Amino acid sequence: MINVAVIGFGYWGPRVARNFQTSSDMHLSAICDQRPEALRIASRDYPEVTMLSDPQEALTSPDIDAVAIVTPVWTHFDFAKLALQNGKHIWVEKPFTLTSSQATELIELAEQKNLTIMVDHTFLFTGAVKKIRELIDNQTLGNLYYYDSTRVNLGLFQHDVNVLWDLAPHDLSIMDFLIREEPEAIAATGQNHLNGLEDMAYMTIFYPHKLIAHFSVNWLSPVKVRTTLVGGEKKMLVWNDLEADEKIRVYDKGVQISGSAGVYDLLVGYRSGDMWAPKVDQTEALKAEVLCFADSIANGTKPINDGAAGYRVVRLLEAATRSLKNRGSLVQL
Amino acid sequence: MINVAVIGFGYWGPRVARNFQTSSDMHLSAICDQRPEALRIASRDYPEVTMLSDPQEALTSPDIDAVAIVTPVWTHFDFAKLALQNGKHIWVEKPFTLTSSQATELIELAEQKNLTIMVDHTFLFTGAVKKIRELIDNQTLGNLYYYDSTRVNLGLFQHDVNVLWDLAPHDLSIMDFLIREEPEAIAATGQNHLNGLEDMAYMTIFYPHKLIAHFSVNWLSPVKVRTTLVGGEKKMLVWNDLEADEKIRVYDKGVQISGSAGVYDLLVGYRSGDMWAPKVDQTEALKAEVLCFADSIANGTKPINDGAAGYRVVRLLEAATRSLKNRGSLVQL
Amino acid sequence: MINVAVIGFGYWGPRVARNFQTSSDMHLSAICDQRPEALRIASRDYPEVTMLSDPQEALTSPDIDAVAIVTPVWTHFDFAKLALQNGKHIWVEKPFTLTSSQATELIELAEQKNLTIMVDHTFLFTGAVKKIRELIDNQTLGNLYYYDSTRVNLGLFQHDVNVLWDLAPHDLSIMDFLIREEPEAIAATGQNHLNGLEDMAYMTIFYPHKLIAHFSVNWLSPVKVRTTLVGGEKKMLVWNDLEADEKIRVYDKGVQISGSAGVYDLLVGYRSGDMWAPKVDQTEALKAEVLCFADSIANGTKPINDGAAGYRVVRLLEAATRSLKNRGSLVQL
Amino acid sequence: MINVAVIGFGYWGPRVARNFQTSSDMHLSAICDQRPEALRIASRDYPEVTMLSDPQEALTSPDIDAVAIVTPVWTHFDFAKLALQNGKHIWVEKPFTLTSSQATELIELAEQKNLTIMVDHTFLFTGAVKKIRELIDNQTLGNLYYYDSTRVNLGLFQHDVNVLWDLAPHDLSIMDFLIREEPEAIAATGQNHLNGLEDMAYMTIFYPHKLIAHFSVNWLSPVKVRTTLVGGEKKMLVWNDLEADEKIRVYDKGVQISGSAGVYDLLVGYRSGDMWAPKVDQTEALKAEVLCFADSIANGTKPINDGAAGYRVVRLLEAATRSLKNRGSLVQL
Repeated sequence: MINVAVIGFGYWGPRVARNFQTSSDMHLSAICDQRPEALRIASRDYPEVTMLSDPQEALTSPDIDAVAIVTPVWTHFDFAKLALQNGKHIWVEKPFTLTSSQATELIELAEQKNLTIMVDHTFLFTGAVKKIRELIDNQTLGNLYYYDSTRVNLGLFQHDVNVLWDLAPHDLSIMDFLIREEPEAIAATGQNHLNGLEDMAYMTIFYPHKLIAHFSVNWLSPVKVRTTLVGGEKKMLVWNDLEADEKIRVYDKGVQISGSAGVYDLLVGYRSGDMWAPKVDQTEALKAEVLCFADSIANGTKPINDGAAGYRVVRLLEAATRSLKNRGSLVQL
Repeated sequence: MINVAVIGFGYWGPRVARNFQTSSDMHLSAICDQRPEALRIASRDYPEVTMLSDPQEALTSPDIDAVAIVTPVWTHFDFAKLALQNGKHIWVEKPFTLTSSQATELIELAEQKNLTIMVDHTFLFTGAVKKIRELIDNQTLGNLYYYDSTRVNLGLFQHDVNVLWDLAPHDLSIMDFLIREEPEAIAATGQNHLNGLEDMAYMTIFYPHKLIAHFSVNWLSPVKVRTTLVGGEKKMLVWNDLEADEKIRVYDKGVQISGSAGVYDLLVGYRSGDMWAPKVDQTEALKAEVLCFADSIANGTKPINDGAAGYRVVRLLEAATRSLKNRGSLVQL
Repeated sequence: MINVAVIGFGYWGPRVARNFQTSSDMHLSAICDQRPEALRIASRDYPEVTMLSDPQEALTSPDIDAVAIVTPVWTHFDFAKLALQNGKHIWVEKPFTLTSSQATELIELAEQKNLTIMVDHTFLFTGAVKKIRELIDNQTLGNLYYYDSTRVNLGLFQHDVNVLWDLAPHDLSIMDFLIREEPEAIAATGQNHLNGLEDMAYMTIFYPHKLIAHFSVNWLSPVKVRTTLVGGEKKMLVWNDLEADEKIRVYDKGVQISGSAGVYDLLVGYRSGDMWAPKVDQTEALKAEVLCFADSIANGTKPINDGAAGYRVVRLLEAATRSLKNRGSLVQL
Repeated sequence: MINVAVIGFGYWGPRVARNFQTSSDMHLSAICDQRPEALRIASRDYPEVTMLSDPQEALTSPDIDAVAIVTPVWTHFDFAKLALQNGKHIWVEKPFTLTSSQATELIELAEQKNLTIMVDHTFLFTGAVKKIRELIDNQTLGNLYYYDSTRVNLGLFQHDVNVLWDLAPHDLSIMDFLIREEPEAIAATGQNHLNGLEDMAYMTIFYPHKLIAHFSVNWLSPVKVRTTLVGGEKKMLVWNDLEADEKIRVYDKGVQISGSAGVYDLLVGYRSGDMWAPKVDQTEALKAEVLCFADSIANGTKPINDGAAGYRVVRLLEAATRSLKNRGSLVQL
């Protein structure tokens, strides 16, 4: 049984805590938050769990084996470092850290101490993402042409991070999981309108072999959209995460250029066949992720969302931020 | 009665011809196409109209008052120049020309000769675009924050122009009509996958006062999307051109930041009220455009889609192309 | 403070209990269920509440002021009668009773004892239904032409009631609330396919003044639909309860016949204007309903979903059942 | 080459004429309409075709081999009878006749004279209906449970037929084609609101083996719906005719009852798997229908939409009308 402490009991912390609580491999030992109001709610829901107001205590206590750091991103590095130094496995909310060098330092520290780092890229554990990965891996889509993601709605304005750091970690972590190639360069544009932080942004990522990825994130949209297109040589898919049932639609559509019969006559073949919506596993992602955390700790294996995955997402966010400041100038990775 | 010749009888030419034919102000005098097959179809549909295989004839004939140049873009400049030199009013398919300097030369020539140039930005004459312009002009939306346009589907591959020059002229001409400000700079990214011409592209246009516009065009999408979001300070709208009935939805949604109560406490007000889909005029756009052409010729007035409008779109396409070649590097306008 | 007991802790009971628990006017005193497993769950969630396995106890205890009977419909009458005889206000799950004479008996008993009956027609307390009632009452729709409701999906098969008694109480209670006229007659058809109970049914209800209502309920639909159309002389509306945001759309559409210019020439005027989606109150319906229960008890007022409302719904179900058995033969009300 | 005359050049006649005109097996010889305005339009479009104002001429002329009767339903019988008596094959707009006895008389006459009757049930020639028939015939759906059709919108009011005779022939002809069983009985309800003719109607048709069909038709709906559900033991499908691309969606969903473990414990198995949208043939239905007419005449074969099919639809309409007058009372077939 792994004793775990959850640090930060705001919006996401209670969900993480609940999943630790109901896991048969983990024991929720402590909940920590500096706000008395948060602790009062926590103690009502978990009367038998220790309540702490000082994170230091949770991060250093000998009774704790692992900590889940579910706090604002600017606290991640210090909390994570202290936890690792004290021999604790860590679960860190995304984005992993504020800088890629912080991420590297944590990864190295964990390596030395043989500890597990898990970055909470929850979407990797959804049935939809697992299914898309399967369709890519088994060559159903064929060679990939593009990845095009939109995540917009009238979103909660943050006071410390812009829309890129708030929303794009979801999509970058998914892309990183699905596309097993090294991105080459990134270009980002965006705009702030209200409080100095960008509330909408666009990002293009260039991959080798003519693969291109694009992201649109926006806190100022009147409608909610959560749609990703993945275009392949053989098939193309649309993932609409707002659909209750058919989240993924695979289209037997494509274009093939078979040569040219002269300057003006391209021999283009268009293909349009059936559409197919595969059944998607409905298991709660967070539950599967907690199981994976317990397994990784028990067996010393690396989870799919390990520190390196967290590092790769932060590196893209860093580069995108630099490009954004220069209105889209290309940043090599 | 204005005698008009239509040059080019491929996909769009027949539609233009039909609208001239049914206009009470224009007389369809000649149809010209170099392909015998096209002329055979034309003469079946218009037995009383003169059929010509040589554009020169139509462009110089003294019996013709105006010509509609509905041919590939690389022919526009030569045909338009010859027509103007021979004293004819011109209707030119979009994009107006291959380069902005060509556009300037044609505009000057028309000025000297007191002739009308109309660039076929058909969308400006749709009920939807007219309604959006009205909502912007009467300050229903308030100050504009952003313009976000998506035009994607499994499109016909062109052999001479990329997706930007094929699809974006629609959206750039609409944006140019709706936003009466000078764009400052442009950044574009994209990728070709099949025949060396970009089949998908993204474009960001920066305006003064934090207004930003973004465009996604794609020939390789499994689904057809024709959606534009316009975000304003007071209201936001979604224009879905694929909807049969409610094409425009105006949302009484918004965000207001009224100050800050400390470092971490933004005072943000979110507003969410009624949605409203105004009735949109269903008159055929091309019909209204032909009427406007006849009026402009008769009264010597400038149409909303005059040479200058054509020039502005070409200038954006030129700049976008340059940015595209450099993977998104900013091009000042 | 009103002491309340919840009898039945299956699917809906826990939701009712939670709303009593968080109400400032009610005190959740006891939870009763004959299944030990249900009580175990209940005592985990409400450690301070008395757990009872015998309904008799809850229905007769002098410490209880009101009981919520959230049990299968065939138990309602006996439980409700005993509760009223023991001076308790009652909240009864829908449908109120198995027969209209049972309903009448309970209503009379409550009258004699000055007790409140509330039948759990939850939908009456939703923002959507309140808004539709407002649009009817303030004559926005004008005289009503029809009411057309569809409630279908792959539903849970019941072992004791058919689809009409399972799903239609929702829609009949809503219709009864919206249309303040006396229905005249009813015709119902349907079919069973699997276990002898109808799994799909259609029902037409005739009102005076040419108003007609129709209902489709189905446990065997591959897709989920929750849509109601209300057609009026002046406007028509569509209520799609599955929409997250714009649940109600009001259409400025209609037809007017202004006479006839001869045998074949009807002078018909079609009107098609704006569509409008009014903002709908998002307060949880059950919360508002509990508040109303407390108010009714405190002030001796009749709730909108009183025993008489419950009676009217049961009477329609009874009549529909009779018609259903005779393949649609009309039953006068 | 079969010489054909089209009688009636209103809304549908021009479409039928165009398809005869472009057929390689038929020769459009004459167009007949009593309204001079209609004939003027026809002669502009078909300068080489004979224009007739008297139907008698077309129906009796020795130069005509076949006539298409595209006139109001109350004229069908007289025109069709005269045509058959004069040895002409007939194409008759739906519904075939006003009464089933008229239909019987025409069928017998055609039999005697070895002439082809084709009733214009156009939908039978659409890719969607052909695909659904295939899915039923090859047992993809399994035994059928139900057929549920909705065809509503703000429709054109007719002055001579109610909504049942206007809209339901589409759906009844489709159902008749898809379900190869004898319907047993019918119950219909409806209401008129404006001109004495029902503008909305509901209809239930009972088949053997617990198969049930239901139809909703409405001229007074603010939204347009063209949706049919077909529920089968093995799979269920939704046909949405307003979808541009995926018109048919096949759901691997179902319910199976495998016995009972006691009074309250039904052993119900719910199945929910992939959804699949088969590609549907996009050939214009009317074109395929004209081809079939020519084939039937040439080879003396019976088309799928022969007189008997027309008869079956009229018989259902007759029975539905009788039921409608008695507010849903069952009419045995």
